[in-house]
Amino acid sequence: MKEIYLDNSATTKVHPQVQELMVRIMNEEYGNPSSMHKKGLEAGHRIQEAKQRIAKTLHVQERELIFTSCGTEADNLAIIGGALANQRAGKHLITSSIEHPAVLESMKALTELGFEVTYLPVDENARIRLGDLEAALRPDTILASIMYVNNEVGSVMPISEAGALIKKKNPRTLFHVDAVQAYGKLPVRPKTAKIDLLTASGHKIHGPKGVGFLYVRDGVRLKPLMPGGGQQRGMRSGTENVPGIAGLGLAAELACKNLTEDMDRLYGLKEYFVQEINHIQGAHVNGFAGRDSAPHVVSVSFDGIDRSEVLLHGLEGRGIYVSSGSACASNHPAISATLLGMGLKREYLNATLRFSMSVFTTREELEYTASALRELLLTLRRFRKG
Amino acid sequence: MKEIYLDNSATTKVHPQVQELMVRIMNEEYGNPSSMHKKGLEAGHRIQEAKQRIAKTLHVQERELIFTSCGTEADNLAIIGGALANQRAGKHLITSSIEHPAVLESMKALTELGFEVTYLPVDENARIRLGDLEAALRPDTILASIMYVNNEVGSVMPISEAGALIKKKNPRTLFHVDAVQAYGKLPVRPKTAKIDLLTASGHKIHGPKGVGFLYVRDGVRLKPLMPGGGQQRGMRSGTENVPGIAGLGLAAELACKNLTEDMDRLYGLKEYFVQEINHIQGAHVNGFAGRDSAPHVVSVSFDGIDRSEVLLHGLEGRGIYVSSGSACASNHPAISATLLGMGLKREYLNATLRFSMSVFTTREELEYTASALRELLLTLRRFRKG
Repeated sequence: MKEIYLDNSATTKVHPQVQELMVRIMNEEYGNPSSMHKKGLEAGHRIQEAKQRIAKTLHVQERELIFTSCGTEADNLAIIGGALANQRAGKHLITSSIEHPAVLESMKALTELGFEVTYLPVDENARIRLGDLEAALRPDTILASIMYVNNEVGSVMPISEAGALIKKKNPRTLFHVDAVQAYGKLPVRPKTAKIDLLTASGHKIHGPKGVGFLYVRDGVRLKPLMPGGGQQRGMRSGTENVPGIAGLGLAAELACKNLTEDMDRLYGLKEYFVQEINHIQGAHVNGFAGRDSAPHVVSVSFDGIDRSEVLLHGLEGRGIYVSSGSACASNHPAISATLLGMGLKREYLNATLRFSMSVFTTREELEYTASALRELLLTLRRFRKG
Repeated sequence: MKEIYLDNSATTKVHPQVQELMVRIMNEEYGNPSSMHKKGLEAGHRIQEAKQRIAKTLHVQERELIFTSCGTEADNLAIIGGALANQRAGKHLITSSIEHPAVLESMKALTELGFEVTYLPVDENARIRLGDLEAALRPDTILASIMYVNNEVGSVMPISEAGALIKKKNPRTLFHVDAVQAYGKLPVRPKTAKIDLLTASGHKIHGPKGVGFLYVRDGVRLKPLMPGGGQQRGMRSGTENVPGIAGLGLAAELACKNLTEDMDRLYGLKEYFVQEINHIQGAHVNGFAGRDSAPHVVSVSFDGIDRSEVLLHGLEGRGIYVSSGSACASNHPAISATLLGMGLKREYLNATLRFSMSVFTTREELEYTASALRELLLTLRRFRKG
């Protein structure tokens, strides 16, 4: 049976070129970047090369990048490290109510240390309102963290406007953006959007798991969270994961190389899939579905379905892999804060699936998926009535 | 020119079988373990398999293992996480003065939080004295952290005796062992040695960079340091680095499969190399060099050498890669606390090289290295006199 992988917001297949590069490094350029001999230098060059590749995609400087072990660590470093290093200026933080757990739990950890957090609500399309942000900003607000693209429904936050607003109120308030679901999918420009700290992750862009990066604008102070040998200029100790970092660099380059074309293609696929979904009785696409949303995520709620897992496993039986929930909040399915925050009807909270595409997704796969969904829903509803 | 890699304590080449497994997972079993469908389950099984493999080598339970992104993170989690979770019982910590920076800097971070640290000195063979440990233990000592094998000279600490001593004084004092340089090289048995927390790293045992583990004895409480999606039962958030974890698991199995034979072979090679070194005029092996030391590390100081880098690069010119310092304390060469602690003559502090072998090291490589050293020293000394 053919596999149709539509869970690319959970994780992606590693790009063949990325794999190849990683194998070469594991096999030949396996040195420790801290070693003084040639094998150490080779490894160091691989890190530098990865920085160059990523810096180019973001239009930032190479020295503004810190490699981490994942998006979660980058979020932790930005938020906890940023708050701890700047708490003399205040102890107020802002975020949205629909952030990734890595952001929300960082905020919670800071609350325990005496920080105060304002959680912005979202509108029916899972976007913050700029008026709410403006009202929340205070003289003692030292950091605001807003995701670029929501991982559950693909809403795109008004990041540039938020950046302008934050900096107008107080240029020293740090603006962190979790761009894990945006980087490689939409143009991301920290400088233009006045972003001070930006998180990305390798395994969401056909790069390796176990590696991410944090963009840290020149001049921003962070308290390092991993003390040790002082690698990465003291910002993140531990022997650098050279194959992973190199793999991330190449994946970033590949993801951003033809971004406009890739976006056009994905938006085209999304439009097609949304149309197909809209033709299915009792299926409802959540939030924006056009160019005002991310090109790769489609969230769909279904009438008359008690548990989305039934649909998920039904699709799985046909070789189609999708997600209920976000898959980022590990094996404890909770009610989605995003769906709740959008004001989704109660009956839909457990009756929603996320379809997330990648550059490898084809129209045929989506056609097959839509028709599998149609069949499954008919069967389930018949069964339910019977 | 043939490459002779004798810097295996800095990092190792990834085992071909480990690479192969990682590629298979990146290519086919690339799911997110938090996903509910088959690809998520596959990934989860790979993590479970890795735990089984490692647990078997340590004679511990699978649920006692937490995967981290490196040895440094595991040390941080054990020491900072252990101290923060148990500070009600006291705020006193013990470690040795020659630990890896990941341990020493964790201690320093805790000092800033009001903890008190006793640093045990070492003898001329870079081993702690049990009497010093006994004297340092107090009713408010909540954690002692002692490395298994020193990374610079290969001294083996009296871990079992230390464990017995610590637990005799207070069964609730946590015993952490940084076994990064011991695991896969010597038999490591946490239960026998009364170890509560034990650190190991993938890239020191022909496994991947970017992954390590912490053994956490059942019942030991730690404060997680990376908040987020609650993966690994809340102890370490972030999407699991499945290929890395699986690679570590296989590398661990391979490293421990024929441990007795591998040890015998390495001790034989070490004996041979030490003999060769002893025949070189003005070359002195530091610390123990027999079965009372680690099988893979030989530290050598040289008369009449101002900077070991000259020797290092001389060997590099002949395709031989070794280390001055430990390579773990990133690109800022400082005076080695280990060599200083052993009471090495001042003139040797900058005139010391570390040769570290792996299971792939051959007698021919060591023969060639010894003769290259002999030649280089002659040239350097002639040059110096001239």
